[in-house]
Amino acid sequence: MFKKVAIIGFGLIGSSIAREIKKHKLAKIISACDISQKALKEIKALRLVNEVTADLKTSCKNADLIFICSPLSAYEAIFLKIKECANKNVIITDVGSSKLGAIKLSEKILNKDFCFIPGHPIAGTEESGPKAGLLDLFKNRWFIITPGKLTKAKQKKQIEQVWKKFGSKVTTMSAQSHDNIMAITSHIPHLIAYNIVGTASKLEEKIKSEVIKFSASGFRDFTRIASSDPTMWRDIVISNKNQILFMLKRFNKDLNHLEKAIRSENKKELFNIFKNTRNIRKKIIQAGQDSKAANFGRKN
Amino acid sequence: MFKKVAIIGFGLIGSSIAREIKKHKLAKIISACDISQKALKEIKALRLVNEVTADLKTSCKNADLIFICSPLSAYEAIFLKIKECANKNVIITDVGSSKLGAIKLSEKILNKDFCFIPGHPIAGTEESGPKAGLLDLFKNRWFIITPGKLTKAKQKKQIEQVWKKFGSKVTTMSAQSHDNIMAITSHIPHLIAYNIVGTASKLEEKIKSEVIKFSASGFRDFTRIASSDPTMWRDIVISNKNQILFMLKRFNKDLNHLEKAIRSENKKELFNIFKNTRNIRKKIIQAGQDSKAANFGRKN
Repeated sequence: MFKKVAIIGFGLIGSSIAREIKKHKLAKIISACDISQKALKEIKALRLVNEVTADLKTSCKNADLIFICSPLSAYEAIFLKIKECANKNVIITDVGSSKLGAIKLSEKILNKDFCFIPGHPIAGTEESGPKAGLLDLFKNRWFIITPGKLTKAKQKKQIEQVWKKFGSKVTTMSAQSHDNIMAITSHIPHLIAYNIVGTASKLEEKIKSEVIKFSASGFRDFTRIASSDPTMWRDIVISNKNQILFMLKRFNKDLNHLEKAIRSENKKELFNIFKNTRNIRKKIIQAGQDSKAANFGRKN
Repeated sequence: MFKKVAIIGFGLIGSSIAREIKKHKLAKIISACDISQKALKEIKALRLVNEVTADLKTSCKNADLIFICSPLSAYEAIFLKIKECANKNVIITDVGSSKLGAIKLSEKILNKDFCFIPGHPIAGTEESGPKAGLLDLFKNRWFIITPGKLTKAKQKKQIEQVWKKFGSKVTTMSAQSHDNIMAITSHIPHLIAYNIVGTASKLEEKIKSEVIKFSASGFRDFTRIASSDPTMWRDIVISNKNQILFMLKRFNKDLNHLEKAIRSENKKELFNIFKNTRNIRKKIIQAGQDSKAANFGRKN
């Protein structure tokens, strides 16, 4: 059990972590830190934690575990403040969607006495803010640890235990592999969803209202994905820029090929393109990452 | 009540229609016609209909209502056979996702004594085949009628009544408007989903297995959309080619802009792009086309 857990950035993920820590009695004190006045009000109303503050110094004081759950652009300031205020024996961990940049920053700012366990839970909904948090959000979902130079074996094990308590399946991989995989499984899908919703929102008013009316034909699923937190996504695409641009290039090449097949009415090629994608779906269901149920793993 | 309803093409939509007709006792005889031997076997096992046949002539004989629920590429052959075998007082209707092409064909093949009510239910799942059909699939969903020269007022009203019985909200618009709207709300989203899943499936084996493992981060929603029936989608993109290519051009222009913003790390622009898309989502929820519930309108 930890004496004091500080959760820095108390949005969907941070507040879900607090709910789990409370449920499993993993800490004596939970401290929530957020820079948004609106969030601070909401956190107080939730009565989930023992301390609510906008001051990182207050939150980190005497903490033996710090969860960084903020947008990636805040990491630099957070690491600087942690270095200044936290005990050296504290375990620092995070939940960011892009790992190479976070690790590089941690190694640049924190000195070697600090311990940083970079992590990423493959879980979430399209909502944001303290009230959006859920118990069981991490249940049966992956938690990926991407060790860096500041990752120590003993503390890594402790973090693994914490996430296993949350119900997650824990795995370890290199930050480079993680960022490659997330570019294609998460970042590009989100970018494309944002893009198509953006294209639709620029249509003439008359057709736009019809688009909304008849969105059930596929479009609304994209609007769900494209309603995720804009600050978080701005930071992710910048942080994982290289991998994203690389994968986007492949995506564009394929889209160009598909466009040509449509233009030339190449029936055989179109059928093949649309048929081959079914196999990967089957494998995902076999791997237990989705089911035929509409709401599996999305919301509880 | 109809004497005999013929359902030509007995997949997800055709078999859902049969379930509704049976439930609401809208016909004395339901005839199911399909060219697939596998489908015919499944239809027999379902015990939903009175007649199961691969022969269009048999199915259309004495029918006073014909639902065309086949892929669009079969329409020409079906219209030719209907002209040859059906009673002239029969009401012909369809459920195709692209309307201009269907109407043009109907007007070319059928003579003016026939009545054709072109329609499109905005409903479906990613599954296909007779067993995939569901009761209440059309409940609270839109059914769009796009009149052509062969659409007669009295029979149009009858078809509206039928879909209202199924629980649908019925509306009328021009085939051109319909095809425009579907290009952006349905056809492009499906194409993009097929494309990203295609891009992923071409990755090296090692990363591909990781993509499957960690698909819950967004990707799996695209694989669900991209597992729809390939024949149906091949026909839709060819049938609505012009609208799709037009919208794809806009999509590509926007994606190019987004790519540039990522490359130059334009934080302000990225935030704006990701923020503006939230409004359209809010409007969709307000319009009752989606809810915060994960499975709303998707599956029962």
